[in-house]
Amino acid sequence: MTELLAYFEKELPLINGFLNEETAKLQGLVRGVARHVLLAPGKRIRPVLTILSARGLGYSKVDIYPLAGSLELLHAATLLHDDILDDADLRRGVEASHLVFGTTETILAGDVLLALANRIGADYGKSRISSILASGIMATAEGEIREIAHISEPMVDRGTYMEIIIGKTARLIETSCRIGAALACDDRDLEDAVGNFGLNMGIAFQLVDDALDYESPSGDTGKPEGGDLREGKVTLPLILYLEMLQDKEAEELLAEIKNRTLSDARRDQVLKEIRKHELGTLTRQSAADYIKKAKECLSPLPDSMECRVLKQAADFVLTRSK
Amino acid sequence: MTELLAYFEKELPLINGFLNEETAKLQGLVRGVARHVLLAPGKRIRPVLTILSARGLGYSKVDIYPLAGSLELLHAATLLHDDILDDADLRRGVEASHLVFGTTETILAGDVLLALANRIGADYGKSRISSILASGIMATAEGEIREIAHISEPMVDRGTYMEIIIGKTARLIETSCRIGAALACDDRDLEDAVGNFGLNMGIAFQLVDDALDYESPSGDTGKPEGGDLREGKVTLPLILYLEMLQDKEAEELLAEIKNRTLSDARRDQVLKEIRKHELGTLTRQSAADYIKKAKECLSPLPDSMECRVLKQAADFVLTRSK
Repeated sequence: MTELLAYFEKELPLINGFLNEETAKLQGLVRGVARHVLLAPGKRIRPVLTILSARGLGYSKVDIYPLAGSLELLHAATLLHDDILDDADLRRGVEASHLVFGTTETILAGDVLLALANRIGADYGKSRISSILASGIMATAEGEIREIAHISEPMVDRGTYMEIIIGKTARLIETSCRIGAALACDDRDLEDAVGNFGLNMGIAFQLVDDALDYESPSGDTGKPEGGDLREGKVTLPLILYLEMLQDKEAEELLAEIKNRTLSDARRDQVLKEIRKHELGTLTRQSAADYIKKAKECLSPLPDSMECRVLKQAADFVLTRSK
Repeated sequence: MTELLAYFEKELPLINGFLNEETAKLQGLVRGVARHVLLAPGKRIRPVLTILSARGLGYSKVDIYPLAGSLELLHAATLLHDDILDDADLRRGVEASHLVFGTTETILAGDVLLALANRIGADYGKSRISSILASGIMATAEGEIREIAHISEPMVDRGTYMEIIIGKTARLIETSCRIGAALACDDRDLEDAVGNFGLNMGIAFQLVDDALDYESPSGDTGKPEGGDLREGKVTLPLILYLEMLQDKEAEELLAEIKNRTLSDARRDQVLKEIRKHELGTLTRQSAADYIKKAKECLSPLPDSMECRVLKQAADFVLTRSK
């Protein structure tokens, strides 16, 4: 893990420098929103993955930072629009943008960041890069939509759950990796290898996130505790719990989630049961399978420090506790 | 004008066919929103401008329809996000999307349409096309933001008004023309000529729109009458009226607009005064100057039917009554 930490330590200031510079150029109202969400402490996983993917395929130029940073711009744009949808109070431990700046300003700031990311991508003069970016954005918005559709119609279906987490999270992580590969080379097989690494790692990332939602008090994650249950989102720990119940019991609980009639006491009880049965741990075990797959995807890549760091980053996903 | 009408008559079914086909492929919830906004009757000005610009520079391939249609997708995306911002009731004569489908679904459908337009653009394999699209989207979102900023701080300033209308309307019309030119050729001077035609035509288009807002009953435009004044938007007819008033009177009216304390009776009175002094007509005269400029921009283009139709389209902007 020391290589991984050293890599983040080296790259983070350069990524943050780019984000700071680029958001400073934005127009008044957008600038405030963009800096609020982008300069709050973040892990910068997506930009680092872009850098690692490109470097692992031999790309050594320093012009990579705008492209890497554009993935953080995209991610921030989805956070801005998401928080309005979820009506979230907190994001990255600070008050959500739409509560500070207003819904209108936040929608438009999201649009500006999406457009800025696309413009940065287009500036590399490779249409494949624009194509990957656009597909990533589309899949992400479609994943969100799918998730929302199932809030009003919650169901215990692992297939649907997987579709949702691939769309809302894994595709953008795949995009981060794929775009680095596309910058480095024109070999579609290598791009797919790196892209599939990202896809599997992204699935694991969301699985761990969904486990954490049932494991951590809000002070650690910067999000309210048991937030998914509160918002009516059916994720794997809850699916595992529902599968343990009698049909009738499960149906009743789903109906309460759907109709938003779940009392605080009942929610606390469900949280407690899920913890007691260690369904978060079971969810993490599923994540571990995807991490194994992710690392296997990298086999066509030449051995390099970056390739090792990519594997360490994948392992790190499993161990994070916030 | 007969060439113009014949051109629209020929191209409209092809553009609508593309929009129908492309939106049918979208996912459940997005599909509903997208078709609601895109299949309502529309003038399809932007796609037709893309086609005319490309054909006027000698591009004859039939693969132009997705690119032309992508401009309508972008336009629809901005309408979706706008209507949430404005909390509009009507759009193109039908109920606004967010009231039919919900705010959440409408925000995400807008994101999907933006991404789809970018993906379509990227598929042409010319990074200049992606770059123009991204810049157009960014300028449009920034224009919207600027407009919103001045709703809470209304002012009588023609420079600011011009900045706003260029951003929120003219840049996307410029983009429609510029992107057709970029598809047809790699000559940046010709691209600029066609782009500047679009920019000036777009300014005139919005000036006429702002005049219409004070001229037409809502049945004609599909928008509520005197809507701009109602929403606190200071447009040229109102600026001209404020310039006619004593300083103190103007300040008082601006304060009422800012504080949303304008009574219905007072608003009707302002509407009546603006009509009496024919400030809508004066606004159209300003539009006529921009149309003249627009047509001059086309002088470097070879003479062709499309070049003539572009000029007719510009003239048509001035005469439209809805």
